[in-house]
Amino acid sequence: MKKRPTVRLQPRQDARLRHGHPWAYSNEIMMDAEAKAIPPGTTVTLTTAGGERLGVAFFNPHTLIAARVLATDTDTVIDRTFFAARFAAALRLRQRLYPEPFYRLVHAEADGLPAVIVDRMGDVLVVQLNAAGPDLATDDIIRALVETVNPKAVILKNDSPTRALEGLATESRLVYGTLSGPVELTENGARFQIDPLEGQKTGWFYDQRDSRAFVARFASGARILDAYCYGGGFGIASALAGAASVTLLDRSAPALEAALRSARLNGIADRCETKHREVFEALDAMAAAGEQYDVVIIDPPAFAKSRKDIPVAIKGYRKLARQAAGLVSPSGILFAASCSQNVGVLEFADAVARGLHDAGRQGRILRQAGAGPDHPVHPTLPESAYLKSLTLALD
Amino acid sequence: MKKRPTVRLQPRQDARLRHGHPWAYSNEIMMDAEAKAIPPGTTVTLTTAGGERLGVAFFNPHTLIAARVLATDTDTVIDRTFFAARFAAALRLRQRLYPEPFYRLVHAEADGLPAVIVDRMGDVLVVQLNAAGPDLATDDIIRALVETVNPKAVILKNDSPTRALEGLATESRLVYGTLSGPVELTENGARFQIDPLEGQKTGWFYDQRDSRAFVARFASGARILDAYCYGGGFGIASALAGAASVTLLDRSAPALEAALRSARLNGIADRCETKHREVFEALDAMAAAGEQYDVVIIDPPAFAKSRKDIPVAIKGYRKLARQAAGLVSPSGILFAASCSQNVGVLEFADAVARGLHDAGRQGRILRQAGAGPDHPVHPTLPESAYLKSLTLALD
Repeated sequence: MKKRPTVRLQPRQDARLRHGHPWAYSNEIMMDAEAKAIPPGTTVTLTTAGGERLGVAFFNPHTLIAARVLATDTDTVIDRTFFAARFAAALRLRQRLYPEPFYRLVHAEADGLPAVIVDRMGDVLVVQLNAAGPDLATDDIIRALVETVNPKAVILKNDSPTRALEGLATESRLVYGTLSGPVELTENGARFQIDPLEGQKTGWFYDQRDSRAFVARFASGARILDAYCYGGGFGIASALAGAASVTLLDRSAPALEAALRSARLNGIADRCETKHREVFEALDAMAAAGEQYDVVIIDPPAFAKSRKDIPVAIKGYRKLARQAAGLVSPSGILFAASCSQNVGVLEFADAVARGLHDAGRQGRILRQAGAGPDHPVHPTLPESAYLKSLTLALD
Repeated sequence: MKKRPTVRLQPRQDARLRHGHPWAYSNEIMMDAEAKAIPPGTTVTLTTAGGERLGVAFFNPHTLIAARVLATDTDTVIDRTFFAARFAAALRLRQRLYPEPFYRLVHAEADGLPAVIVDRMGDVLVVQLNAAGPDLATDDIIRALVETVNPKAVILKNDSPTRALEGLATESRLVYGTLSGPVELTENGARFQIDPLEGQKTGWFYDQRDSRAFVARFASGARILDAYCYGGGFGIASALAGAASVTLLDRSAPALEAALRSARLNGIADRCETKHREVFEALDAMAAAGEQYDVVIIDPPAFAKSRKDIPVAIKGYRKLARQAAGLVSPSGILFAASCSQNVGVLEFADAVARGLHDAGRQGRILRQAGAGPDHPVHPTLPESAYLKSLTLALD
């Protein structure tokens, strides 16, 4: 085994790491010629300026997050056995949370596996490796995962835009086993068929599971509008909970086809209709036509991909809230979400409150929520809870 | 009917109210001799400096929150009919949320009834009027409530410390109907007996209902420590979910007696023991004795009653998190809550993360939550969500 290189912090940059934070930023590192020459993704020993060992980390000299701590014990060997132990711990936790094997199995730093995402759809695992460290360890990671979970198929869905920042190529491919037909999962008692290779991210957004269950509490007899419906998670859960009608709105034809296929799978397709249109446009058209819904769900993709996008994103959330609130019937429900990590909870709540006011509507926030518990958050990174949603009961 | 007095805002102080915020602060009001002479609690017409009508409000010239808006339409008559309509709307919302009549029925501003709290335990209603406005309207409020809900008993539990700020006396008494024996409620399928007249606040904290259900998901076969247990909400829910043992810890003997009575009511008293001791002391003693629990719940009363208490409160939360984390078994669960309105979500999360680190423990946040949906939040007051909790899975 090769000797592990050492990377030193600048003087007095060790406090945050000593308090358990898992990252060192580029400007905190002694970025000398030696450090710069370390190949991206190499596992290094991270020390203070004085040489005191702080931990083992994935290192990339070319990115803002330069070091991602894997373990504070520097005797830890980062190999297949290490990854298998982390996967086993992540699996035990999910098995305590869910009776069925459908969940985010690994959520990166919070599961002690920086930049590693694994979603589980029964016997199928979809993996995203979002930094040079796990990318370089791909073989060990996939083999450890197969050993731990014993799946029928593992898909590497390496198409996240964050990979470009890490200097990595994008690709989506089956790396283990065989796939036959569409992948199926169940969530809140509803069945869904998805296509991880073609779909967004891992193919499914388990993060909204609890919110879908909560919103479905208002579905009985209701007219539902599921905007940015993607695979129909909210709409189909609501239909199964007794909705009178569900309008599935998305600008992606394949997404609507998948949603409709899942609707048929659950025997509620007769109460679902699809609308293939850009959402802002569609909501304006619905308002012009005088349409009303008892529950409106607005679950858009991230509007703020970086900090500079924040003002435009906030405007977008406010406009969407105004448009959506205008379509909510008296005493109806509005669910609005943001998955922009760069937009804080209070900023988002303010945008929604303003949109409500723009629409001349009043209401109350019933529930403010993040992602479900299979998307844990590292205790020193509470602001990394990217997903935030509000469920409001309007007057 | 008497003519309603008019209170004017200072110039350029109307923007926030125009955006739907329900309060005007004392320094925003044209506090002339006339305004100062208005009896606390009087219903007034609130206008801009120029005389444009903004709304009808409860007014108290002696408090920081001087005006609390009841309606933006200034033709609204604030009488028994008005209160009955607000109660009816609040009731409809709870009936959509819960199959059984056990919930917070009215949560102040978010239900359009400033400073009015009503908890419902079946046929018994417990009311808190926390400002001069609703206090002056006590008769109309109680009669409207009785008309709307048709309860067997209404208790006025006017013992909140905020009443002193409003210049109001404290008192607890039955104001309608009759009470026979202890009051019973059910929550997450568990039964509880409480004493609203003697207990804390309204006698029960429905705000943690969803968190009690979430924590109980980890209860099967587990040793549970329920610290600051009060009526045993967390512990008894966990025992019913299959906990091996439940330690109910509180410094109040009546609280422990009530918790034990409820444990017997649910047939799980054989797995419950009570510990009558101050919590910080008890946790130290447990650590010294080498005790370990699979789930530790820390749900203390508010440490920061005012802004000046914040630093001490943060220290307290950090210390509690350290003590509690030290008692959690490997792979165990820590639930920590703060009901201090003055401590923000991120501040609290930081205190807990530091406490965890102090204890030499690592973990992940599974769930970050507020109060349940029967405690809605006014959209322009998202920071008023006083309750925050973290559920962590430790290594």
